[in-house]
Amino acid sequence: MAVNLVAPDPATLRAVAGIELGAAAAGIRKNGRADVLLMRLAPGTRIAGVFTQNSFAAAPVQLCRQHLAGGHAMRALLVNAGNANCGTGAAGLQAAQRSCQAVASLLGCRAEEVLPFSTGVILEPLPVDRIEQALPNALAAAGGSAQHWADAAAAIMTTDTVAKARSTSCQLHGRTISISGIAKGVGMLQPNMATMLAYLATDAALSQAALQRMVRRVADHSFNRVTVDGDTSTNDSFVLLATGQSGAPVIDDESDPAWAVLEAALTEVAATLAQSIARDGEGATKFITVQVEAAASEDEALRVARSIANSPLVKTAFFASDPNLGRLLMAIGNAGVVQLDTRGVDVWLGDVRVIEHGGRAASYREELGVAAMQPAELLIRVSLGRGAAQTAVWTCDFSYDYVKINAEYRT
Amino acid sequence: MAVNLVAPDPATLRAVAGIELGAAAAGIRKNGRADVLLMRLAPGTRIAGVFTQNSFAAAPVQLCRQHLAGGHAMRALLVNAGNANCGTGAAGLQAAQRSCQAVASLLGCRAEEVLPFSTGVILEPLPVDRIEQALPNALAAAGGSAQHWADAAAAIMTTDTVAKARSTSCQLHGRTISISGIAKGVGMLQPNMATMLAYLATDAALSQAALQRMVRRVADHSFNRVTVDGDTSTNDSFVLLATGQSGAPVIDDESDPAWAVLEAALTEVAATLAQSIARDGEGATKFITVQVEAAASEDEALRVARSIANSPLVKTAFFASDPNLGRLLMAIGNAGVVQLDTRGVDVWLGDVRVIEHGGRAASYREELGVAAMQPAELLIRVSLGRGAAQTAVWTCDFSYDYVKINAEYRT
Repeated sequence: MAVNLVAPDPATLRAVAGIELGAAAAGIRKNGRADVLLMRLAPGTRIAGVFTQNSFAAAPVQLCRQHLAGGHAMRALLVNAGNANCGTGAAGLQAAQRSCQAVASLLGCRAEEVLPFSTGVILEPLPVDRIEQALPNALAAAGGSAQHWADAAAAIMTTDTVAKARSTSCQLHGRTISISGIAKGVGMLQPNMATMLAYLATDAALSQAALQRMVRRVADHSFNRVTVDGDTSTNDSFVLLATGQSGAPVIDDESDPAWAVLEAALTEVAATLAQSIARDGEGATKFITVQVEAAASEDEALRVARSIANSPLVKTAFFASDPNLGRLLMAIGNAGVVQLDTRGVDVWLGDVRVIEHGGRAASYREELGVAAMQPAELLIRVSLGRGAAQTAVWTCDFSYDYVKINAEYRT
Repeated sequence: MAVNLVAPDPATLRAVAGIELGAAAAGIRKNGRADVLLMRLAPGTRIAGVFTQNSFAAAPVQLCRQHLAGGHAMRALLVNAGNANCGTGAAGLQAAQRSCQAVASLLGCRAEEVLPFSTGVILEPLPVDRIEQALPNALAAAGGSAQHWADAAAAIMTTDTVAKARSTSCQLHGRTISISGIAKGVGMLQPNMATMLAYLATDAALSQAALQRMVRRVADHSFNRVTVDGDTSTNDSFVLLATGQSGAPVIDDESDPAWAVLEAALTEVAATLAQSIARDGEGATKFITVQVEAAASEDEALRVARSIANSPLVKTAFFASDPNLGRLLMAIGNAGVVQLDTRGVDVWLGDVRVIEHGGRAASYREELGVAAMQPAELLIRVSLGRGAAQTAVWTCDFSYDYVKINAEYRT
């Protein structure tokens, strides 16, 4: 069902010097497929992450925050699919710690130098013994090739129908920099900090402070702009890794001309992965970009875009290819924009102007709207007529299959 | 599909002295059914209302606010179903004014003494000539009997499958007071001020200030506690009428012992009507009460209750009768409660304790949860362990038919 999305061709992916990935089957997800991923990081790799704002942050998220706050150098990431290790209390924290210790024993590092990530069913005990048993296989399978990135993307999937990976390169101070990323979705998904799980790695070198700022800026223009159902998961994590192995000089802050080049390249990969999540949104038949312009602030633009992107009435109309303009109006009006002069609001569906001055556009004809709703990829453009700020949000429609998938997920 | 909801038996409804209702078919909705309602108010009837907070408030809502602000005595309400007269600009306001003028001519009052209400499709011109043509029939049909209340409830329906009306009585200072109300839903529905359209009338007497306070308090404990899809309509209106014809003394404020009696009776009618809207929510197969207790404030309790009631993942799990406790946890965690100690959170599904201390209850067994999800009426009870405030929200599940209804509504 994914909209214009195919599994990544390994030929399009790039190795990132300093990163090795190994997947193995631990029997947590079904059918014996790979469900555990070990990412091994070369010494000197810097890491920064953003995590869910849900009050019920899962045990691995709590442990990630703790390990990162300790200022340790990280040597490995451990990801399992099929069990979220959330709402599991002290036992869940112990299980996550045990999994880190198992990786540490295998790699000869400290447990505090391992970050754990989990995705899947909530409130079930994590079968950490199965993870321990699978780890040697994961390590044996580990390598840094493009194929290893493709395998890693597949290993972290849950309800995703297509694996999500993307690479690019850029030039920094005369050196070629590689960037590769993987991500997974695809329900319980309006990340506030990050998508459910996403990992970007580069062989560029950044100071720790620069990496922290970079991960937030990249997240704000990629994973924080996607929504499937407006629900924020308990396990959202987005991690940015910089191995420094390209040999390019360390970037300390935005005054370095390399910053903008790297930020653009990282954002391109992250935004493409974020869009992949909406394309593969549960039950999706359409990929929808909601762009809000002429807002008084970016925050205001974002609220309007999210109000449209999360409205079940708007999403079902898109599923039906029904140009139900009243629902767009309703969603704009519900965004809580203070003293919105509705006469300043214009809306386009693709190239068709549908709303002008807050009412139906004079040139609008139903058949134009119907035609504009047909493509599998749609752009809704809203101009608020209040200022110069703008943003875009990516989402999908709301279909019978969304209900089907979510009424049957656990069974 | 409505959950435990049947059309009102006229034998259970009560006339309210001073109120006459007449319905007629104007050909705005389909199939020649009655779609225009004229409510005639005896001289001396006081009125107070609350309206949508959507920025795209419809033309009739704008006119209601204007007429009420003018301090006029109201002589009539005019309601049409099938067209919302929203997003229709200056022409829409003129059409609403023209409809008021038509009523005024017929009744021999001023246009400012008429309040207009519309519900239905947004962004379509209101066929005001058809309303004008139907008005004499509506007036000829008008009367104050219980049957007239039942007919009125049917005339304002849109996607409702069952008409919604309710009456009660109480004793104030030795006089029997009648209360009757009608309402309609049932999509685009998380009223911030009121449900889409609801009218309550009583022959009690209240000062204008008391009526204003009363309408807000009743709304806050009835229509503002129901949600179907989290979308707030452009036309939400709730109006409270007090004809004073019972002969009971005028209530000036809460110090009158009659205030509490009347408030309880009005709230009972309004809450039952509000629950009817959730029972008849688009595609509903379950009626769900979400009760949040031990919150630090009522606002906090309401945010948690709405986060649960509006989560598509929670609502699809209820449709599937799947005790997916992780989704409840996720929704509680997303409510934005500041510094929520998750170890204080307990949750019950009906009588079954499912979450304790923020994790799965020790006594919980899957078969208990499955059994608790079977009834068509469910209570979710959440204790936050933070204080003494509480509230409840009524909602319904999210089914294939919700998608079907909303993918086909206009066509």
